[in-house]
Amino acid sequence: MTVPGQEVAICEASLRDGLQGWPRVVPATAKIELLRAVAAAGVTEIDVTSFVPASTVPQFTDAEQVLAGVPDDVTVRVLTVNVRGARRAADAKAAGARIDRCGFPISASESHNLANLRRDHATHKAAVAEIVDVLGGAGIAPLLGVATAYGCPIQGHVGRDDVLALVEWGYRLGIRSIMFGDTTGAADPLAVRQLFSAAISAYPDVEFIGHFHDNRGCGIANTLAAIDAGAATVEGSLGGIGGEPAAVEQGFVGESGNVATEDLVAVLAQMDIRTGIDLPALLRAGALAEELLGRPLLSRIQRAGPFPSHPATS
Amino acid sequence: MTVPGQEVAICEASLRDGLQGWPRVVPATAKIELLRAVAAAGVTEIDVTSFVPASTVPQFTDAEQVLAGVPDDVTVRVLTVNVRGARRAADAKAAGARIDRCGFPISASESHNLANLRRDHATHKAAVAEIVDVLGGAGIAPLLGVATAYGCPIQGHVGRDDVLALVEWGYRLGIRSIMFGDTTGAADPLAVRQLFSAAISAYPDVEFIGHFHDNRGCGIANTLAAIDAGAATVEGSLGGIGGEPAAVEQGFVGESGNVATEDLVAVLAQMDIRTGIDLPALLRAGALAEELLGRPLLSRIQRAGPFPSHPATS
Repeated sequence: MTVPGQEVAICEASLRDGLQGWPRVVPATAKIELLRAVAAAGVTEIDVTSFVPASTVPQFTDAEQVLAGVPDDVTVRVLTVNVRGARRAADAKAAGARIDRCGFPISASESHNLANLRRDHATHKAAVAEIVDVLGGAGIAPLLGVATAYGCPIQGHVGRDDVLALVEWGYRLGIRSIMFGDTTGAADPLAVRQLFSAAISAYPDVEFIGHFHDNRGCGIANTLAAIDAGAATVEGSLGGIGGEPAAVEQGFVGESGNVATEDLVAVLAQMDIRTGIDLPALLRAGALAEELLGRPLLSRIQRAGPFPSHPATS
Repeated sequence: MTVPGQEVAICEASLRDGLQGWPRVVPATAKIELLRAVAAAGVTEIDVTSFVPASTVPQFTDAEQVLAGVPDDVTVRVLTVNVRGARRAADAKAAGARIDRCGFPISASESHNLANLRRDHATHKAAVAEIVDVLGGAGIAPLLGVATAYGCPIQGHVGRDDVLALVEWGYRLGIRSIMFGDTTGAADPLAVRQLFSAAISAYPDVEFIGHFHDNRGCGIANTLAAIDAGAATVEGSLGGIGGEPAAVEQGFVGESGNVATEDLVAVLAQMDIRTGIDLPALLRAGALAEELLGRPLLSRIQRAGPFPSHPATS
């Protein structure tokens, strides 16, 4: 169980996971303004951009430009889905871009991997091995994202043993940062505790990372369960952006977004679980995100205000 | 910690807490249709209506008519805020209405008690003592609702000792069902665990009930924490209705409503925590609520669908 004084790292995902399905391309200058506001609030890791084909995700053609704007004191994460993207990341780093680590997904559900990445597990695993090599040669730490870790919209049930088998496979590739992605908000707190507990006890030298979507209203509960179970890092997205922005456009707010970083940091602060993040500054960053994206986003704390004082120590 | 196979009772609050601030008066026939659908899903307790002045809450002038429509196998709860209302409940019961228990609030924060009920603690405590007497004479079990139990929008911090002092006071009045109301979504899971654990260990013969609003996105997490800590009963409201319907009208869905019963029952089922409720039938009741109230409500499960199968036993 979490205890007051416990620490957890937060990675801000709005710039990457949040924007990848956003219906409009956001100018690089706005992205840089936002990531600087996030960093100024004390967030120490930001998933900044993706090296993915512009034909698939037009949002990230400005990857190199945005990376040039990252403040010095932030751990920079990027994403790729194939070897070509890993080479772009390596080239960018060689050209001076600050890239500390690079994530790449594999879906625990092979049917989801096929739908999302158009590769079966065998083909994709070979690609991932090559990605790890390319990144290693460039001095970029690899980060494996196990998608559909708690269930899959196509195949339904995902066995914990299948997820742990991917952890073992990644471990043997030398990967020491592994994210369990709740791609469609299929996790419940019990499943989260069981998965993180099993993984952490089997691989004590791996950084396990929690990433949850809020499709079923359990995003905060699941993130707290991951921290309970010992997750080193959890992810949030300012204003909860991510998931299906079309749903946001239609007013079904909160339906499938990420966990809102503001809401997560607020409840953690309330329980004296330490993130190093300054909540008022984070709320200003969230307000900036609303201004830059041109609409109210999904954070409850932005609407309801911070918790009335109820110190965890009382 | 919750364990698979654990049981918890759910009280459905949409008919009372959900509708009390609803901007339109809902016809008694619609209310009866809805409560029958809720009961048909296996919900065993329903907060059906309020005996409050029509001038304050015009929604409940049909209290006696709605009570006449409650199915036989449901525990019927009503609410009152003063002695006059308790007498109306007693008269209704004497005239044949099925009323099993009656709730009445006291805010842990005296400033909130003054704002909400226009009585200081001393005056209100005297009224509650008389309410308990009236109900006792009518064979209606008393249920004390401690509002602002985790924090107050007026005074801010609410001390746990102040809440437990009200429990002790209620216990001495003979009350054995006590609800902790998170009136404005001020609770965090740690505070919930601490309060329920302290209360349950000090008063093992009291039924403690959890009731949470979702203003800050922690409704599900807090409800699960209450169950973790041993709450006998937790409350939900179909579609999450309740709180500030004006916010709902403006499209800020999910902002200040109750915990959506559909979402709560879904995640409990996913973790094999047993409620006796049939989820598909409950989802039909929630869809009926949307039809009767004329708009999409706040349940995520109604939009995202049930969890993909990930049995807690896997």
